[in-house]
Amino acid sequence: MDIQSAAARIGPYTHRTPVMTSSALDAMCGARLYFKCENLQKVGAFKIRGAANAVLSLSDGEATKGVATHSSGNHAAALALAARWRGVPAFVVMPEGAPEVKRAAVKGYGATIFGCAPTLAAREARLIEVVAETGAAVVHPYNDYRVIAGQGTAALELCEEVPNLDMVVAPVGGGGLLSGTALLVNALRPHVQVIGAEPARADDAWQSMQAGRIVTVEHPDTIADGLRASLGDLTFPIIQRYVAQIVRVSEDAIVDATRKVWERMKLVVEPSGAVPLAAVLSGEMNVRGLRIGIILSGGNVDLDHPPWIR
Amino acid sequence: MDIQSAAARIGPYTHRTPVMTSSALDAMCGARLYFKCENLQKVGAFKIRGAANAVLSLSDGEATKGVATHSSGNHAAALALAARWRGVPAFVVMPEGAPEVKRAAVKGYGATIFGCAPTLAAREARLIEVVAETGAAVVHPYNDYRVIAGQGTAALELCEEVPNLDMVVAPVGGGGLLSGTALLVNALRPHVQVIGAEPARADDAWQSMQAGRIVTVEHPDTIADGLRASLGDLTFPIIQRYVAQIVRVSEDAIVDATRKVWERMKLVVEPSGAVPLAAVLSGEMNVRGLRIGIILSGGNVDLDHPPWIR
Repeated sequence: MDIQSAAARIGPYTHRTPVMTSSALDAMCGARLYFKCENLQKVGAFKIRGAANAVLSLSDGEATKGVATHSSGNHAAALALAARWRGVPAFVVMPEGAPEVKRAAVKGYGATIFGCAPTLAAREARLIEVVAETGAAVVHPYNDYRVIAGQGTAALELCEEVPNLDMVVAPVGGGGLLSGTALLVNALRPHVQVIGAEPARADDAWQSMQAGRIVTVEHPDTIADGLRASLGDLTFPIIQRYVAQIVRVSEDAIVDATRKVWERMKLVVEPSGAVPLAAVLSGEMNVRGLRIGIILSGGNVDLDHPPWIR
Repeated sequence: MDIQSAAARIGPYTHRTPVMTSSALDAMCGARLYFKCENLQKVGAFKIRGAANAVLSLSDGEATKGVATHSSGNHAAALALAARWRGVPAFVVMPEGAPEVKRAAVKGYGATIFGCAPTLAAREARLIEVVAETGAAVVHPYNDYRVIAGQGTAALELCEEVPNLDMVVAPVGGGGLLSGTALLVNALRPHVQVIGAEPARADDAWQSMQAGRIVTVEHPDTIADGLRASLGDLTFPIIQRYVAQIVRVSEDAIVDATRKVWERMKLVVEPSGAVPLAAVLSGEMNVRGLRIGIILSGGNVDLDHPPWIR
């Protein structure tokens, strides 16, 4: 896997997103926070990095019948857009209950959507049917080295822009972003701690680290809709080896951190993207005086229903 | 008045805010839009530029008894922060009905707040009382050349960063931002059109331009709470001379433009700040193919009540 090659491959298509700071949020935690604004990325999330790297890595023969995946949202939109860049069709299995704004984005990029029940098993079964029917190449949302390498490019840009970080915190769902981040940081800045942040209600990564094997959480019920997936057999070993700690945060802490980013930084971030800030503010880690990189992973939220308005 | 001097004076305190673009919004209007993100400025609005320039311009003797103003919001917070930087007290007259988030910001910066009825006459009368009591130096929210020069620094940075603009659009309330913008653009880029954008429900600037004298609108009822003020005798002549056109937009268009910025750019902007985008999208001007600078003037909005949720 080569994150530098991925960066060169996707660079002409993706944004080099800004790194932003907030003296108000710094004051709240006693640390200096550097937010990598992937909510300002194409499709509104880091997911385009992995999807683009995977789709652009395919040979012409592999790509010709299109690409397929299952995803509750941001990866689906990302794959649809990357397929459009490549000029091939995209087929996306989306579970019922996926946010409408994410469904609309996928359609807008010209992908064909297939519905299924909102379980991992149903998603995977439906994807197998779709692939049998179309002959498309599968691009898994996270359990794919091309995707992991692509996601690592956000941390690469962050480390280039802020050379002397002490810690990097990324959210963890299926682990594509966290494992790519961990690989990059280990290679480029081996003394920088990498932390995974996840909802307590979807704490499969924390449980997996405790157990030393992949543990899944069935029907995780968290407002952080991008972090409901469980680790894969490619992402878990990387996380096990290179991630110092998984920090779990409550639903209230996620909503509060989301609101703080909107209010203090004037940035629209989705709840999944605010989970790392929630971890830093939780008091679970000693962050005082540290320089901390935070991946603000995405900004796709239903504006008719801000997280704090029920 | 010297906008370059103002830039040097306030530069150590204020942010050089980023200029952002959106291919989605460009596609909607057929132009190339460059958003000067003053919602990411200190206090969440361009107002800190004018307030800081005024407060930092005072002699020690003038500053010693503090500064005072009347404002429904962003200028109040800005003056409070600028006074804190200078180490002098701030006294602020705020009308009833000012957004709670703005009131909290003013208090947070340590200013003393005085209430009054929500009319221009009541605000001015109360301010006279406060000044008589405290001996503070008045910094008017817009009808002050030091403030106008400070507000012009946003356009200075925009023109430096995007050298070949065809048009710059700024919102107009009391006219401080618009007149500072117009002076700067006329001096630096005399062939660039400057446009003022204002709510149709608070169209005193449009009426004033038609009448050739200052017309005020009593009790303007618009969601763009930062644009309810009427032009002053210093801002009007500058606007009359250097602004090509005032474009009026409906309340629906303001809400729609606000939402588009949140949704497409992932930026929290207040309704007043989205009025220029509403003007560009209104079809009132021929913008096709133009490179247009837009001042996103502020991002202070009550997150419990997003403009599109009633």
